[in-house]
Amino acid sequence: PRERLLTGDRPTGPLHLGHLVGSLRSRVALQDEHECFVLVADLHALTTHPRKEDIARMSGHVRAIVEDLLAVGIDPARTTIYLQSAVPAVYDLAVLLQMIAPRRRLEGLTTLQSLATAAGLPEDGVTMGLLGYPVLQAADILMARAHVVPVGQDNVEHVDVARELATAFNDLYGDLFPIPRAHVAACPALPGVDRGLGGSAHKMSKSLGNAVALRDGPEQVREKLGTLRLLPSVPVEDQPLLAFARAFLPAEADDLARGITRGTSSEAAVREAIVAAVLAELEPIWARRAEVTADPGRVEEVLVDGTIRAREVAYTTLQSVREAMGLEPAWQELVDITERRVRTRKTPHPA
Amino acid sequence: PRERLLTGDRPTGPLHLGHLVGSLRSRVALQDEHECFVLVADLHALTTHPRKEDIARMSGHVRAIVEDLLAVGIDPARTTIYLQSAVPAVYDLAVLLQMIAPRRRLEGLTTLQSLATAAGLPEDGVTMGLLGYPVLQAADILMARAHVVPVGQDNVEHVDVARELATAFNDLYGDLFPIPRAHVAACPALPGVDRGLGGSAHKMSKSLGNAVALRDGPEQVREKLGTLRLLPSVPVEDQPLLAFARAFLPAEADDLARGITRGTSSEAAVREAIVAAVLAELEPIWARRAEVTADPGRVEEVLVDGTIRAREVAYTTLQSVREAMGLEPAWQELVDITERRVRTRKTPHPA
Repeated sequence: PRERLLTGDRPTGPLHLGHLVGSLRSRVALQDEHECFVLVADLHALTTHPRKEDIARMSGHVRAIVEDLLAVGIDPARTTIYLQSAVPAVYDLAVLLQMIAPRRRLEGLTTLQSLATAAGLPEDGVTMGLLGYPVLQAADILMARAHVVPVGQDNVEHVDVARELATAFNDLYGDLFPIPRAHVAACPALPGVDRGLGGSAHKMSKSLGNAVALRDGPEQVREKLGTLRLLPSVPVEDQPLLAFARAFLPAEADDLARGITRGTSSEAAVREAIVAAVLAELEPIWARRAEVTADPGRVEEVLVDGTIRAREVAYTTLQSVREAMGLEPAWQELVDITERRVRTRKTPHPA
Repeated sequence: PRERLLTGDRPTGPLHLGHLVGSLRSRVALQDEHECFVLVADLHALTTHPRKEDIARMSGHVRAIVEDLLAVGIDPARTTIYLQSAVPAVYDLAVLLQMIAPRRRLEGLTTLQSLATAAGLPEDGVTMGLLGYPVLQAADILMARAHVVPVGQDNVEHVDVARELATAFNDLYGDLFPIPRAHVAACPALPGVDRGLGGSAHKMSKSLGNAVALRDGPEQVREKLGTLRLLPSVPVEDQPLLAFARAFLPAEADDLARGITRGTSSEAAVREAIVAAVLAELEPIWARRAEVTADPGRVEEVLVDGTIRAREVAYTTLQSVREAMGLEPAWQELVDITERRVRTRKTPHPA
């Protein structure tokens, strides 16, 4: 049987080139050899955005992400795409895993502070939900009994927590979970284009306004990438332009870097090569997106079907967890005794 | 409609005179005018006792508690007695409430440290589950949409957390929950008998070995209460013997106190009066217990029936919560679109 893989995205906005490079390419490649699960992590979004307006806005983002996933080539026949909040057993698993998750370990994670800061939360705005984020993520990973978890470098710590919880669970209640491994993208984080709050000095991010969305058309892509410049007094290896070259022209990136250093490649020429490569990679993505949008209801059906499949998987795992912990046998014994009693009452004179 | 009341016990051992005085009497009295829920809080027990052996031991405690509840006169026709871990919607509610529960508020609770200490947990043995205890308790209270929560003085802080979460939820998502009120027992905590680790200087507690269990027989009760003495150099109002008098002979307690001070009542006479009063109160409890134990399967049936009823109540509340937050409408829209699509596919040539 193929190893299982789980990964996901928070529905805070449409996916962009940073996601493509950092995780979508490898998801598409890995789905041939793995049984894949991709969650739309709306509960994770609630940990920093719990207001009713936030939730209302999320609906559109959820569909946008599924459309993006289908456009880049995630195949729902091989990958289960599901909505996290609509899988009841995940909540049960999260609460049960919290019982063995050391508080100190979670308080020591720097990632949670980054999430709080990125969401503009004051110190006293941090909730139990945010502190429990890595446990909820572990519940997702373990509900799928996943072996592989493709993540960005900044999320490796959370996979470590999931590994520790899987190990602790197995030690306490018997071997049930494979110990999941983080699969870190080979490509480092892509910088943004030179606009928005972040500019090209920051990692590409929708909230920083420096992203090229996968749903942008050819003109927008050309225009946004056209803002990329060689930055003065920045070593060539740290130039955003070179980061784009490494991500989209990996075979030529070293030559381009040398060309820039020696003055034999112009900024404009490098940029044009990058634009051409990005457009070439986006071409089939646009084509698949056109197919998806020409078929109304396809996005919704993929997500609903995937969620129903995820519910079965999660429920099966939850039953195994309750079995292993002894909760299910205890309940089942109560039910069995009750059923025998009711049967006896209904047949007062058994043969 | 009658106000709803929710309370419960952790299944860590059989109930004793301290429970009778501190909460069971008022539960029995309040069930006439309230719609009552009493949970056997096995998930709460997991927050400090998550090991497989602990869970295996819990099964017997769960039944012992239900038997105790029936023996003291809790009427399953008026009170829903249920097993917390077997109500799936409670887990969902707990996770959703965590999203709006300020971490700082929970970290500031002294009750959690007491629970950890009582369970012999080292500082680094405190789990997310224990930190989240008050949120889980709030999920129990709010799933029943309870108005009244009878608790001991030491649990009022947790009801405050539930009040704050109900208020925060209503503010964020619209009025859904009544704001629950703590109903603190008039009787202060009963001291133990003079044996075990705790002796009569400590609150009666099974784990301190100084408890008179409700399931103890007349001889055991006599023998245990016989250990009560007037303690030297302790003011009369602080004498454990007087605490028993106030709990079981409230009309005579002041006279007995005066008699002791003046030397007109002997220690032995006061003790005998207390023993007689306790035996008189336990008499009908023993009788009802005998009825229950003569009817094998009754305890299990009460708990299973109550749990099924609690599941309905909890599920209904969870649906209202998901409705109010906007999670259910978002999911329902996906399902509706998918269903229309499937219908269209099945009828390619509609009339």
